[in-house]
Amino acid sequence: MKGTLYGVGVGPGDPELMTLKAVRMIRENEIIAVPGADVKETVAYKIAVQAVPELEEKELLPIYMPMTHDAKELEENHAKGAKALEACLDQGKNVVFLTLGDPCVYSTFSYLQHRVEADGYHTELVSGITSFCAAAARLNISLSEWNEQLHIVPAVHRLDSELTESGNYILMKSGKKMNQVKEILAKSGRDVLMVENCGMPEEHIYHGVEEIPDDAGYYSLIIAKEHK
Amino acid sequence: MKGTLYGVGVGPGDPELMTLKAVRMIRENEIIAVPGADVKETVAYKIAVQAVPELEEKELLPIYMPMTHDAKELEENHAKGAKALEACLDQGKNVVFLTLGDPCVYSTFSYLQHRVEADGYHTELVSGITSFCAAAARLNISLSEWNEQLHIVPAVHRLDSELTESGNYILMKSGKKMNQVKEILAKSGRDVLMVENCGMPEEHIYHGVEEIPDDAGYYSLIIAKEHK
Repeated sequence: MKGTLYGVGVGPGDPELMTLKAVRMIRENEIIAVPGADVKETVAYKIAVQAVPELEEKELLPIYMPMTHDAKELEENHAKGAKALEACLDQGKNVVFLTLGDPCVYSTFSYLQHRVEADGYHTELVSGITSFCAAAARLNISLSEWNEQLHIVPAVHRLDSELTESGNYILMKSGKKMNQVKEILAKSGRDVLMVENCGMPEEHIYHGVEEIPDDAGYYSLIIAKEHK
Repeated sequence: MKGTLYGVGVGPGDPELMTLKAVRMIRENEIIAVPGADVKETVAYKIAVQAVPELEEKELLPIYMPMTHDAKELEENHAKGAKALEACLDQGKNVVFLTLGDPCVYSTFSYLQHRVEADGYHTELVSGITSFCAAAARLNISLSEWNEQLHIVPAVHRLDSELTESGNYILMKSGKKMNQVKEILAKSGRDVLMVENCGMPEEHIYHGVEEIPDDAGYYSLIIAKEHK
């Protein structure tokens, strides 16, 4: 019988934000895959090993998933990653793939899951705390109340227009477009907060558009709320 | 010194989806508040006690928060709830308030937090797994990939127009408007799935608009994805 591939969220950074289920999944399975060429240097591994020290003794499988917009390179790496996972599943072993935040929200795991499913394997998902929930908790604010809508936008790909919808916005992946994102935010008249590296040692909070640097890091999350 | 009020998410239903931090917060504090008149009958209590059995021995504080659209009734109950919490905080005790899902996403805790903060007390939030992440994991699908936007709409209050934005939609709180919600969903041409009572014993999954009953329960979550 073939093994099952589990996509397991480890949350945004603070190991205490891992779920009981994520901890159990790691404990109960022997092969743990992580997105990155050097397992022990990946963010997902570093989070999980703090909550589950026995992770060090597991069979660790690096799945290299570079962040690139080159469709051919992405395709090749996803195919290669899926093959490595399937080689384990073919031996009847389960694989626990650790992924930052939640595996259903902008997770690279989705691409591997589509391929592995298409190849006839069984997959399952275990939820994790999303970066936007963790950032809101860190800021001690709500993301949405009562009748407010909440819009989550992957800014690097999509923020080509103003924030015209009613409700609050979460802008993820602003990175390389931060200049443009800041212009749109400034025009929006919204209350803007940003958390960089939420829950990690290098965490930094920015209040207002003017504080946000143009060269903010990859793990930067912006909350833009309607002014009340 | 006054105590701190902690808003702690217990996730959507499955006790294993509680975080390590939520478990620790309950263990380390004596007073646990829950939204409901009869503590041991509340959903939040029933979830948490399965993961943390010692919750039974804690001082349990019921905070009655009825679901009503009557502004005066809401106002009165929030004021009364805040006062009950503050009476504990004034004794220098911390209070852990258990809330379903995440305390930053459509949580009744937000109203209490605003009041208690305004009265000069310190509050903190502990993230929980949201119902929409849990529902997506249960369905084994992603909510958003790559450049897709994700729109979260409290349908009972806001679904007065068609689903015209690009990206995927999550409709929460459709309850009493399910008839109208179904009409809008049918017109949208999107792939529709609904999970009722996700992670609970009465869980039910509906595939497509036609399967969704008009009288679906309060804990019903709809995912409407762009057709690919």
